Amino acid sequence: MPLSGAVLELGRRAKAASRVLATTGTDAKNAALMAAADLLVASRADLLAANAEDLEVAAADGMEAGPLDRLRLTDARIDSMANGLRTVANLADPVGEVLDGWTRPNGLQMQRVRVPLGVVAIIYENRPNVTSDAFGLCLKSGNAALLRGSATALRSNLAIAEVLREGLEKTGLPQDALIVVADPSHEVAAEVMQLVDHVDALIPRGGPALIQSIRDNATVPVIIDGDGNCHVYVDEHADLDQALAIVINAKTQRTSVCNAAESLVIHDAIADQFLPIVANALVEKGVVLVGDVGARRRSAHIAPATEDDFGREFLDLKMSVAVVASLGDAIAHVNQYGTGHTEAIVTRDLAAARRFTNEVDAAAVAVNASTRFTDGEEFGFGAEIGISTQKLHARGPMGLRELTTYKYLIWGEGQVRG
Amino acid sequence: MPLSGAVLELGRRAKAASRVLATTGTDAKNAALMAAADLLVASRADLLAANAEDLEVAAADGMEAGPLDRLRLTDARIDSMANGLRTVANLADPVGEVLDGWTRPNGLQMQRVRVPLGVVAIIYENRPNVTSDAFGLCLKSGNAALLRGSATALRSNLAIAEVLREGLEKTGLPQDALIVVADPSHEVAAEVMQLVDHVDALIPRGGPALIQSIRDNATVPVIIDGDGNCHVYVDEHADLDQALAIVINAKTQRTSVCNAAESLVIHDAIADQFLPIVANALVEKGVVLVGDVGARRRSAHIAPATEDDFGREFLDLKMSVAVVASLGDAIAHVNQYGTGHTEAIVTRDLAAARRFTNEVDAAAVAVNASTRFTDGEEFGFGAEIGISTQKLHARGPMGLRELTTYKYLIWGEGQVRG
Repeated sequence: MPLSGAVLELGRRAKAASRVLATTGTDAKNAALMAAADLLVASRADLLAANAEDLEVAAADGMEAGPLDRLRLTDARIDSMANGLRTVANLADPVGEVLDGWTRPNGLQMQRVRVPLGVVAIIYENRPNVTSDAFGLCLKSGNAALLRGSATALRSNLAIAEVLREGLEKTGLPQDALIVVADPSHEVAAEVMQLVDHVDALIPRGGPALIQSIRDNATVPVIIDGDGNCHVYVDEHADLDQALAIVINAKTQRTSVCNAAESLVIHDAIADQFLPIVANALVEKGVVLVGDVGARRRSAHIAPATEDDFGREFLDLKMSVAVVASLGDAIAHVNQYGTGHTEAIVTRDLAAARRFTNEVDAAAVAVNASTRFTDGEEFGFGAEIGISTQKLHARGPMGLRELTTYKYLIWGEGQVRG
Repeated sequence: MPLSGAVLELGRRAKAASRVLATTGTDAKNAALMAAADLLVASRADLLAANAEDLEVAAADGMEAGPLDRLRLTDARIDSMANGLRTVANLADPVGEVLDGWTRPNGLQMQRVRVPLGVVAIIYENRPNVTSDAFGLCLKSGNAALLRGSATALRSNLAIAEVLREGLEKTGLPQDALIVVADPSHEVAAEVMQLVDHVDALIPRGGPALIQSIRDNATVPVIIDGDGNCHVYVDEHADLDQALAIVINAKTQRTSVCNAAESLVIHDAIADQFLPIVANALVEKGVVLVGDVGARRRSAHIAPATEDDFGREFLDLKMSVAVVASLGDAIAHVNQYGTGHTEAIVTRDLAAARRFTNEVDAAAVAVNASTRFTDGEEFGFGAEIGISTQKLHARGPMGLRELTTYKYLIWGEGQVRG
């Protein structure tokens, strides 16, 4: 499909801005972030007015309460956006780090230096705060941000972008360091996914439909921020009080997030003792349980699970339960049904912990801790742009470092190849 | 497009083998590599016989001399394949390296550990030695290799794979650590590009047609091993003897490779002096020159260049020449026409070298050295699987390290999220 001139032009503008940002110093980037934060707060009334229009149209179109709430800007949420930019300004600048270096026998001195990706495109859904959050992380890591939010949030996103771009201009940085795509059509979104000469990385933030559209359409390099079908495996050598607390936390502390647990796997040797306790506790928290024969034998609270249940990210008060005969079976179950996000084992046995961490194939493997810790803030990254479930480039929470690449510098004195 | 059962089954087998390889120790991998190397040499007659069939069919089909030569196995090439495996066996194992680690305020101990990618698919063209080379790098880095070579080399590739798989079996590793796709149809190649549940990274090794097919069809994560439209910029402060040697080397030492220079950029201030000398020397080496007005004014050897010429990877004794008014113009020219592979500056001026290395956007930027050094061997990686021209995951020469990813380990004592 040939790209339309309008989208190509956005790509060109973003790429041109990225060339400037690549060599912009930390102080200048921080000044722009702080100015943008102040302007967000000062422009509160305009932002709320634009958002009110989005909300009105969305409500008239029958948007449900959950999405409507995510779309809503409030004083507190505007403050939070501004504070997010200030937080990012205070994080260390990843650009320019010398990752390694060495000298070759012919005298060439090699350096591998961290540099920005260039243009980062982000396609996201209904939350206007992503416009500001993504801008902040991209700018601090030296990248131009090409953002395409949902049609429902377009007025809000454009209003936020106008303010942020004013912050860039006031501090002498190119306004095109942030471009919000103003045409909310799916055709334009598909074109953004194909800007191979201008977009260095595309990060989709959304559900399975968006991910599928990316797989179908994208020709630019993509970092998939995918589902989390996270398991907690309670080993035969688990501390059962710890296991109970971890399972309840992982499943119920917040259900709508990708690092919530969706599946409980229990070793047969402790299932008689532990399964009724954990099932009762989960049911008390409102969790609907489905399970295999071994699980249902131990608790009347558990309905039969389909094959699909074990592979599903419920994002709800629902959990699948499986009983396994061995640690090996637990690992096989987790690797079969997991999505490579976060998997936890509860055990006091060192050998079991080591085998589980070695053999489970996931971005994060937790020992005696809740799956809910897989998160940029909890990892100490300060902020995150998403959580990668692919293995290429970045895995797990993505902070500033994951928005960079590197280049090699080769310093010679006239060397040629023989 | 739904995938056919046959290709899915290959994906499943490769994924199952990758689970075993992920925890296979260095000694076992090295033993398999050494056994496979010995078997290649011992199976010389079988390999040459299979290759003779490929050659016969290819010649009958009118294959040209160049591709026919790349398809050909010889005693020396079989020895070279075997020695390649032995070399890889002697390289350090990248798997298990702890990249970093820290402790969170809540006591969680974090580790980021290097692990294999899993299943690496490689689609390549006419050279049977890639079957062995790719296998060696994938195995040493703990990955299963799913290889799809060209139809013309199918008998050779299958014969080589049979020998390598025998080496795996003899040393107790899963044979499916190496799978060569036996159906050479384009439909099957397209399906390999879509094994999203089984292929963790796809590396195409081939020309623009293959890259385009990857962009059109691939839904798995891809590392593009793309074109190299490499420039040598001769600055006004260059040592002109050094510049001459570097230009001649970069252009003519080997023309068919991606790190050969395709474009010469000369600062106006030295063009009167340097351009006639370098043009004469290049013409003497058989190079056809095309250039802009400023270049043609200085040498009668230079024909007019089209816009297309400046963006083209000739892979031949042909070179474009541009004269620029400033270092900034040189950088702009390189960033406009370059493919992000390797760009070189020749200068004695520190500020010019620093600005060029900072502002040029390429995998490798060389100062006073030939572009021909961007190569896994020349970088000291021991071997390479290709040279990435994208920014995601790996940039420049890709050795064993670039065939790995990482996972986070989270060690707790019952922590839950508040």
